[in-house]
Amino acid sequence: MRVFNFSAGPAVLPEPVLSQAAAEMLDWRGSGMSVMEMSHRGKEFISIADKAEADLRTLLAIPPDYKVLFLQGGAIGENAIVPMNLLQGRTTADYVNTGEWSKKSIKEAKKYCTVHIAASAEDEDFTYVPAQSAWKLSPDPAYVHICTNETIAGVEYQWTPDAGNVPLVADMSSHILSRPIDIAKYGVIYGGAQKNMGPAGLTLVIVRADLLDRALPITPSAFNWKEQAAADSMLNTPPTYAIYIAGLVFEWLLAQGGLAAIEQKNIAKSALLYDYLDQTSFYRSAVRREDRSRMNVTFRLADEAQDDAFLKGAGQRGMVQLKGHRAVGGIRASIYNAMPLAGVVALVAYMREFEQHNG
Amino acid sequence: MRVFNFSAGPAVLPEPVLSQAAAEMLDWRGSGMSVMEMSHRGKEFISIADKAEADLRTLLAIPPDYKVLFLQGGAIGENAIVPMNLLQGRTTADYVNTGEWSKKSIKEAKKYCTVHIAASAEDEDFTYVPAQSAWKLSPDPAYVHICTNETIAGVEYQWTPDAGNVPLVADMSSHILSRPIDIAKYGVIYGGAQKNMGPAGLTLVIVRADLLDRALPITPSAFNWKEQAAADSMLNTPPTYAIYIAGLVFEWLLAQGGLAAIEQKNIAKSALLYDYLDQTSFYRSAVRREDRSRMNVTFRLADEAQDDAFLKGAGQRGMVQLKGHRAVGGIRASIYNAMPLAGVVALVAYMREFEQHNG
Repeated sequence: MRVFNFSAGPAVLPEPVLSQAAAEMLDWRGSGMSVMEMSHRGKEFISIADKAEADLRTLLAIPPDYKVLFLQGGAIGENAIVPMNLLQGRTTADYVNTGEWSKKSIKEAKKYCTVHIAASAEDEDFTYVPAQSAWKLSPDPAYVHICTNETIAGVEYQWTPDAGNVPLVADMSSHILSRPIDIAKYGVIYGGAQKNMGPAGLTLVIVRADLLDRALPITPSAFNWKEQAAADSMLNTPPTYAIYIAGLVFEWLLAQGGLAAIEQKNIAKSALLYDYLDQTSFYRSAVRREDRSRMNVTFRLADEAQDDAFLKGAGQRGMVQLKGHRAVGGIRASIYNAMPLAGVVALVAYMREFEQHNG
Repeated sequence: MRVFNFSAGPAVLPEPVLSQAAAEMLDWRGSGMSVMEMSHRGKEFISIADKAEADLRTLLAIPPDYKVLFLQGGAIGENAIVPMNLLQGRTTADYVNTGEWSKKSIKEAKKYCTVHIAASAEDEDFTYVPAQSAWKLSPDPAYVHICTNETIAGVEYQWTPDAGNVPLVADMSSHILSRPIDIAKYGVIYGGAQKNMGPAGLTLVIVRADLLDRALPITPSAFNWKEQAAADSMLNTPPTYAIYIAGLVFEWLLAQGGLAAIEQKNIAKSALLYDYLDQTSFYRSAVRREDRSRMNVTFRLADEAQDDAFLKGAGQRGMVQLKGHRAVGGIRASIYNAMPLAGVVALVAYMREFEQHNG
């Protein structure tokens, strides 16, 4: 029996995707091979990769002057790869610090440049997103970097920054494909696949073509965006099976009605939880209302001593991986695209029941 | 119907592994989750990763003072990551050039250090492995790098070099797990998984613990061996599903009798092909006999104009991906661990038949 899996990532995938992958495991559409066994340069896999990119371009309305790369190393790898690819001719990059994932990005960037913190939410434990009016950019940064959804505290940009002529670089790992985005406002968008796209081990990079000439000479070829763009992401063997699964997820998203439709579902799912949290004092949500994440809903029991009992009861009801990140504790319900409404309904019903018995 | 898949990689996997993966796709052993959906920090996935590492250590008899890392980026990524991790305090590294994969390693290393070519087989189109007596090491290299199996020409080290006190670093992507190896003779062994281990997107690094203190400050954390060793390869989200499949492959290898047994099978399979090639002039093998690869058997039709007809006829008989690498042409039969003897028997029978009809 399938559980309701609230993991922050790797995370729940659509059941039809998994069923199709299981059915095609030994023989992909009459090829006599598993997708895992295909040469990445053979016609079968090329057709899979091309369709995945085309469907992703449709979903996100990616303009033609942006390259789509399917790479490896995850967002933490990309935290170093971003400055390597963008610092040619400049020595400073600006970062907005909204939490743990921003801090990891900053740590890696410091290996290659001077990091200027344009704004930070550290003063209030990363429970909000600094408004653009509070940003102080440096005079001529190579780029300005943001993390548009922080999974640990559960904050999300509900607006698109305007960085003017400075390329805006966004780590969107944990909410990409959850809503339409205006790609043209960004220079680079990147993310690990393991929340809304597919299995861990695939990294998506969407980069404006005019930014491809800025790599430092120390950039490894496997992580050099220009070289990978010229090679259709096949300078090295790409993570073929992960690309295949991501392609099935993209097809599933299109069948759901695309990102405008999935956004409405995500609004509805997260509202169920936040509306309940707003009318109780048994559970507490620390994040500013206007910056609350639709993907990662964090809250605390007023009495932390009851955390374990809450998690145990959830597990007995088939709701798993609700424990908050070890850095902050509490409870976290990650409700990505593939979490069905029924999972959120079941969670709220259980929260109500637990409150009634323990409040 | 399954084909005989002679791809050089990604390559054929054991059918029982694929069957088990299909059966467990929606619910891994009562967890209610696919392995793809599991948090990498949850007890289910930790048990999978721990068992994979333990089985690999058993298969390769890895000494306790070696760390096993499950990373990303493939061997081409690692070509840059190796020098980053080993160059602290030194400015030169030595490379033995045995072909296309060696050349890629050399190209990446030049970004970080002076590369000294200790030996090269370029004088004879990379059809042999330079004997150790022909190696000329530099005075104090950070390491000496070899590629122990070159897939394109089809040459393989049938002996273990002795680099003395200099750490020996080996790219073993395309023959690891095909035979026992004496790990203690090496400082670092690395490889992409997509030949004998599992799906593309997983990179194995085996590194002697005393070499973990030599990373350059520019090394990204996700690719810093010391940081990854301290984090059990979970500094970033590892490629969880690829690790799971590799673990199933390791279990399959143990059930086959381990590497001594699989080596005997690989000797028998490759001998079938080479014995046939040695008694015909219709097909030609260019590689020196003592350096022939057991994994990648390359040959040419005496009349190249017949290549297409040969490949077409093979395809009609369910034998696919036999075309030689685009850099050298001809025919290449990659016969990794998971290629059944029946596939090689069928190929030799077809080669004989084709010769009879076209010779």
